[in-house]
Amino acid sequence: MVHVAILGFGTVGSGVAEVLTTNGGLIDGRVNNQLRLKYIVDVRDFPDSPYADLFVKDFAVLENDPELDIVVETIGGATIALDFTTRALKAGKSVVTSNKELVATHGYELLQLAREHGCSYLFEASVGGGIPILRPLSSCLAANELEQVTGILNGTTNYILTRMIRAGLTFDQALAEAQANGYAEKDPTADVDGHDACRKICILAALAFGRHVYPDQVPTQGIRGVTLEDVAYADSVGYKIKLLGRALRQPEGKVCAFVAPHLVPGENPLAGVEDVFNAIAVTGNAIGDVMFYGRGAGKLPTASAVVADVIDIAKDLKKDRHNGWEEGSPDLVVSADSLVSAWYVRAQVSADQARKQCGEIHLLARSGAPAGEAAFLTAPMTQPEIQDKLAGLDVGSLFRVLA
Amino acid sequence: MVHVAILGFGTVGSGVAEVLTTNGGLIDGRVNNQLRLKYIVDVRDFPDSPYADLFVKDFAVLENDPELDIVVETIGGATIALDFTTRALKAGKSVVTSNKELVATHGYELLQLAREHGCSYLFEASVGGGIPILRPLSSCLAANELEQVTGILNGTTNYILTRMIRAGLTFDQALAEAQANGYAEKDPTADVDGHDACRKICILAALAFGRHVYPDQVPTQGIRGVTLEDVAYADSVGYKIKLLGRALRQPEGKVCAFVAPHLVPGENPLAGVEDVFNAIAVTGNAIGDVMFYGRGAGKLPTASAVVADVIDIAKDLKKDRHNGWEEGSPDLVVSADSLVSAWYVRAQVSADQARKQCGEIHLLARSGAPAGEAAFLTAPMTQPEIQDKLAGLDVGSLFRVLA
Repeated sequence: MVHVAILGFGTVGSGVAEVLTTNGGLIDGRVNNQLRLKYIVDVRDFPDSPYADLFVKDFAVLENDPELDIVVETIGGATIALDFTTRALKAGKSVVTSNKELVATHGYELLQLAREHGCSYLFEASVGGGIPILRPLSSCLAANELEQVTGILNGTTNYILTRMIRAGLTFDQALAEAQANGYAEKDPTADVDGHDACRKICILAALAFGRHVYPDQVPTQGIRGVTLEDVAYADSVGYKIKLLGRALRQPEGKVCAFVAPHLVPGENPLAGVEDVFNAIAVTGNAIGDVMFYGRGAGKLPTASAVVADVIDIAKDLKKDRHNGWEEGSPDLVVSADSLVSAWYVRAQVSADQARKQCGEIHLLARSGAPAGEAAFLTAPMTQPEIQDKLAGLDVGSLFRVLA
Repeated sequence: MVHVAILGFGTVGSGVAEVLTTNGGLIDGRVNNQLRLKYIVDVRDFPDSPYADLFVKDFAVLENDPELDIVVETIGGATIALDFTTRALKAGKSVVTSNKELVATHGYELLQLAREHGCSYLFEASVGGGIPILRPLSSCLAANELEQVTGILNGTTNYILTRMIRAGLTFDQALAEAQANGYAEKDPTADVDGHDACRKICILAALAFGRHVYPDQVPTQGIRGVTLEDVAYADSVGYKIKLLGRALRQPEGKVCAFVAPHLVPGENPLAGVEDVFNAIAVTGNAIGDVMFYGRGAGKLPTASAVVADVIDIAKDLKKDRHNGWEEGSPDLVVSADSLVSAWYVRAQVSADQARKQCGEIHLLARSGAPAGEAAFLTAPMTQPEIQDKLAGLDVGSLFRVLA
């Protein structure tokens, strides 16, 4: 018998309880053991829940129960969740989480703690919701030197951009619709300003390249600056605007990581990822390009990933999973300044002047463009180069084009 | 030190040697041990190969070397490969393979043999080339009751269909081009008639649903019957014609599996999978839909998957991987007759007559269609139902529409 506790009975926590119950027989068969949900910790009361008997309010009950093997943390944030995770690991309980903020900010120390106490810290659900990505990255692609990871990592912003592209809604209208549909929070900052995507690319970068990358090391630009004009210009050449989290291997063990809107060519499979779906493309020196696609959020998809981690641990409670990464450092992450790419520019400028300043350009058209506005794609160059060329211009938008 | 041998120094075998060499340091780090390529078995001589010292012709050398841990079988086929795999497993050596024919026809017995002799039989590379799919299916999606698996499983046919769609080549022209580019064999039967896709869907079905599914249980239709007319009609409503391998869970532990060309709606991510790329979509009761995408063949991508299996085994040589399935049976696989779907029909018939026979239809148009030809989409119904309705008509093509 393997005993499990859930911390936080919100969307994901209740989804985990549901999956453990609904698929219980099947899961026990796969673990070759009996998995039993023993506790749910929440400050609230749930007298009508089918799990009402399991609720406790005092975390110490879990800490002191020698029978308890696995703690599922779905509280979120990096305060109480950090405290409980630390105490669980110190008590030798393995912890499974969907909490990207905690992993992105404290992953290294928590992984160390797990190793010291002979237990595991797994977080497949922290990136891409239900999409299997972290385990494939560390096991299925283990024969590869990984070159880069590029992801549509946030379903809310992808939904907003999709509605702008397909329905012609403005950013504000699309955001309001996403909020009405429950795809965006009342305070949408974490999503639309790219912080959520930033945490996820930190975790992917750490796993792909082996050292902790902190959110404050990763330049992050959200989608508030993307306009319907940009969407229309991109569409005129079959490109889609997507918010991408990117991490690229650099010489001497360095990493380049950032989050920003990009123009994605239609033939790139990332261009076809719509609505709340996420996708992560990985390039390795043997495998070439591979992509993982699915629902990046939601109760049951996320619970599916959490429970997969629970099953993995339950199959072998004492296995040393070596699934971690080494310590980060302030000089680990280098700027994207040297990264060459084509650029999309929308500015108040004549075509002639644009050509004069930027050299060879590909002019874009949209119906209803006012006189004096030009949008164009440039030849590949670095960010300092394009910014230098655009000096003095009234630039509305400047986005990279994904190669 | 973990000792590895490669059987068959063809495209995949030499790719495995290359990956083990190129990424050797990194791989040793991930295994936390030294991986050493000790033998290569091939009937041919390779005096100029950098691995010339490793070649042996007598398999018994491997069988009798107590130091040898892992045998990589990249011979292909189900004769010598079966003999060598059987002998290796009986000698307690774990075997890793990319050989879909062998796994699809003898997987159950070889998995049993591996278990009996305390070693492993792994075959991630047998489906989807480099794409991580088998391990994600059995571990990352372990919390799910799987409902169905749908894949573009053969790169050659996908290349041919892509060229028909994008360049307007006929099937014969596209096949000739694929052969010229090395994407199709001189004898293209296994690919274009769907046998390769059939073997792969057998492996996916067995893993997803837990019992061996044999190729001769799976109705298989290739792409020789797909015409440029069909491609044009499909395109008129934004659909793509794709060869799909499908496996669906049925009541009472039964499985429905088949291979056939389908019309795929443009918004389905499988529609965007082009050229030699493969993709496998999986539906689970918790995760919903998830898709895995990448190169389905090729030297290094396939080698990447093979070496990932080698690394998995090398990390823990004696682990019981339980990665298998149970015995199949003649009544396991049920026909697709009861599977309801919309249908694409191209026939020599008037629109009125088509409507009279098939009820509500959606007529399709293409430029240059001769008088008397009609193509249309039907309402959802079973195969016996549509065949009944089409009785007496001169039907050119009849394909399912993927829901």
